[in-house]
Amino acid sequence: MNIREEARKMKLDAPVLAASSNEARNAALSAIADALISKKDEIFAANAEDCRAAEENGIAPAVMKRLLFNEAKLSDVCKGIHQLMSLPDPIGRRLLRRELDSDLVLERVSVPIGVIGVIFEARPDAMVQISTLCLKSGNCAILKGGKETARTNRVLFSIIHDAAVSAGLPATCLLQAELHNEIDELLQCEKDVDLLIPRGSNQFVQYIMNNTKIPVMGHADGICHIYVDKDVDESMAIDVIIDAKTQYTAACNAVETILVHRDIAPVFLPKLAKALNRAGVKLRGTQEAEDLIARNSDTAALASIVEIMGEDDFRTEYLDLIISLKVVGDIEEAIEHINRFGSHHTDSILTRDDAAADRFLQMVDSAGVYRNCSTRFADGFRYGFGAEVGISTSKLHARGPVGLEGLVTYKYLLRGNGQIVGDYASGRSSFHFKDLD
Amino acid sequence: MNIREEARKMKLDAPVLAASSNEARNAALSAIADALISKKDEIFAANAEDCRAAEENGIAPAVMKRLLFNEAKLSDVCKGIHQLMSLPDPIGRRLLRRELDSDLVLERVSVPIGVIGVIFEARPDAMVQISTLCLKSGNCAILKGGKETARTNRVLFSIIHDAAVSAGLPATCLLQAELHNEIDELLQCEKDVDLLIPRGSNQFVQYIMNNTKIPVMGHADGICHIYVDKDVDESMAIDVIIDAKTQYTAACNAVETILVHRDIAPVFLPKLAKALNRAGVKLRGTQEAEDLIARNSDTAALASIVEIMGEDDFRTEYLDLIISLKVVGDIEEAIEHINRFGSHHTDSILTRDDAAADRFLQMVDSAGVYRNCSTRFADGFRYGFGAEVGISTSKLHARGPVGLEGLVTYKYLLRGNGQIVGDYASGRSSFHFKDLD
Repeated sequence: MNIREEARKMKLDAPVLAASSNEARNAALSAIADALISKKDEIFAANAEDCRAAEENGIAPAVMKRLLFNEAKLSDVCKGIHQLMSLPDPIGRRLLRRELDSDLVLERVSVPIGVIGVIFEARPDAMVQISTLCLKSGNCAILKGGKETARTNRVLFSIIHDAAVSAGLPATCLLQAELHNEIDELLQCEKDVDLLIPRGSNQFVQYIMNNTKIPVMGHADGICHIYVDKDVDESMAIDVIIDAKTQYTAACNAVETILVHRDIAPVFLPKLAKALNRAGVKLRGTQEAEDLIARNSDTAALASIVEIMGEDDFRTEYLDLIISLKVVGDIEEAIEHINRFGSHHTDSILTRDDAAADRFLQMVDSAGVYRNCSTRFADGFRYGFGAEVGISTSKLHARGPVGLEGLVTYKYLLRGNGQIVGDYASGRSSFHFKDLD
Repeated sequence: MNIREEARKMKLDAPVLAASSNEARNAALSAIADALISKKDEIFAANAEDCRAAEENGIAPAVMKRLLFNEAKLSDVCKGIHQLMSLPDPIGRRLLRRELDSDLVLERVSVPIGVIGVIFEARPDAMVQISTLCLKSGNCAILKGGKETARTNRVLFSIIHDAAVSAGLPATCLLQAELHNEIDELLQCEKDVDLLIPRGSNQFVQYIMNNTKIPVMGHADGICHIYVDKDVDESMAIDVIIDAKTQYTAACNAVETILVHRDIAPVFLPKLAKALNRAGVKLRGTQEAEDLIARNSDTAALASIVEIMGEDDFRTEYLDLIISLKVVGDIEEAIEHINRFGSHHTDSILTRDDAAADRFLQMVDSAGVYRNCSTRFADGFRYGFGAEVGISTSKLHARGPVGLEGLVTYKYLLRGNGQIVGDYASGRSSFHFKDLD
């Protein structure tokens, strides 16, 4: 398959999908859910082969759980599709309606972005979620899933594509890329692909960002912080930190660094170290953090538990049961540390002090800034978006979890009766700017 | 000056400017307008030197008009600053407020983008407009103007910067780059500069886009079309086309290609050719357009006026008194031509037929799609935005003329009382998603 040629066709057909009604797109989603259920045996058979092959290759049990596509996951993705159908149409919304002059009316309306390339990890449910999010938002999509679920993806894609086309959407609405070298071809399609969404390791996302002129949405790093202020409910703080580190360690919104106010560090840090240690988390920290824990711990086992780290280690995303500890003099030092070493993803302050919380929420330059809760809440489902195509740490277009709204842009429509700019430049006519509706 | 170091400082100080009140930013704008007036002699003297040097270098009179900064231009920029002051604060707007669960409230608020680099043509008024737009939207800016107005820019920048700082804004809010090699340094600052806005020639904008990892907003090409449908007021059509081509030929929103429906081409094209010829516009066109004009013109002079062009020439932005003519079979062919050869900037249909207009406005994939008016309306002032930093043909973030709204992004704030994700994952807690306000 020639990805460039296919992307070209998609681009020219994209306005057809963009012009489809919400009813037509919902009918396609409904047909997809029905087809997935009626053809589930075919999907499960392909998935069993993928899982068998993965097992033979000695894949880790945690990864195996992601590869699996069973009745429970089928039920989840179908629930997701029906939830998506119930959401209002993200396209065709009138965002502005302004009379510039008599009979000269400007509108801004939401429209799909166009052609989106999504490269995602080996997770069959991701194939269903991403393709249906793109269709609901009127976008054509080129989908490349992880190779470990190639057989499952092929069956899923064919079911999804057939159902969408039989429901009346254009055949060019979705395309599957299967070969790894097709990713490099896709990266060259800057004339026809409007947006790339890579999901995966830091290294992989960096590779995509460095090798394409297509705008990229997503995140490479997820270096999230929790700052424990001096006036804090210590037991709540420990619960939140344990959740943020251990509830799903491999997630980008898991916490990597804990900053503790110096006033409470001698008492709080040893308690925290004990709790983290019990939860199986390895500790790294500055010399000061190590000293405080060693000096103030009630058990000998904790006396030498902290590995000393350098400043630059604060830029490391562990994605593992490892955490960094640092003592800070005040909230300003915490804010500066986060803005300097963080990845502008999600950071949380734990405090009873309203003024400190307000300062932190204002000054921390991240997509999500939280007070008194776990960084793990950074997620499209938990924000009530229904689903997400990813989380963006970019500041342009969409920031944080990206759902339907992040998959649309707008266009300006101007309707006149022969107006020319010369008349306004010469003063014969003048604008009166009146917002309508 | 080391641009990288300065950009780093700016990035870390950016949250301070972002946290400033609308009153503080307006006070700075007011101080800037006052200082420009009280120091106008200094500005005019520097500008006289720039203009003298430009004259000696034999610069074209059209360009000379742009270099000039006189009482009239001073009055215009000060009017612009006061208009900007009267606009509502673009930052701190609450875009969403949703209760995810009891005592767990998500907000989305508008915030500045952060640090913006703007590289612009030799136009002293641009220095004032861009710096004040950035300050009003709470963004730090690195400004590099065209070298032909280097002396004027230096004086203007120093006045603007001093006034902003004396009004209480941080000294890092604005930085001037003066040397051409500083542009290349700026392009390397992807860690600290959030957005680049290059203005200038296609070649220059392409160079920027190809040599930086920083997101770029703007446009390289402005290949705008007017499609003349079969049911059209011919006299209106000719007026609109003449305006769109000649009112300001060097503008990106000037029209480059006219598409004419085959049913009216034998009558309309010769009339159009005559009017364009009278306005000093050179004609290029397909063989069919040439034949129709040659065969049906009432004056011999028009018989051989059209230079034959190839398909690929339709990708040329003339920025000159030259226009391309093509005959199309129907509106679908017009739409396909525009989506294939255009630059997704601004395109207009001239028609009395509502259904044809609706189809065109829906299917043309451009930032601005117009009916019965000149493409020259694509402009921040004419859209009622007060001013613009440029026009974007990108589909992400901001599209079309970019004013204050395109210079902000948002962040998510989440306030809880110790909520952890584990409780929601295990089913002990559940989200109830209730939009507030």
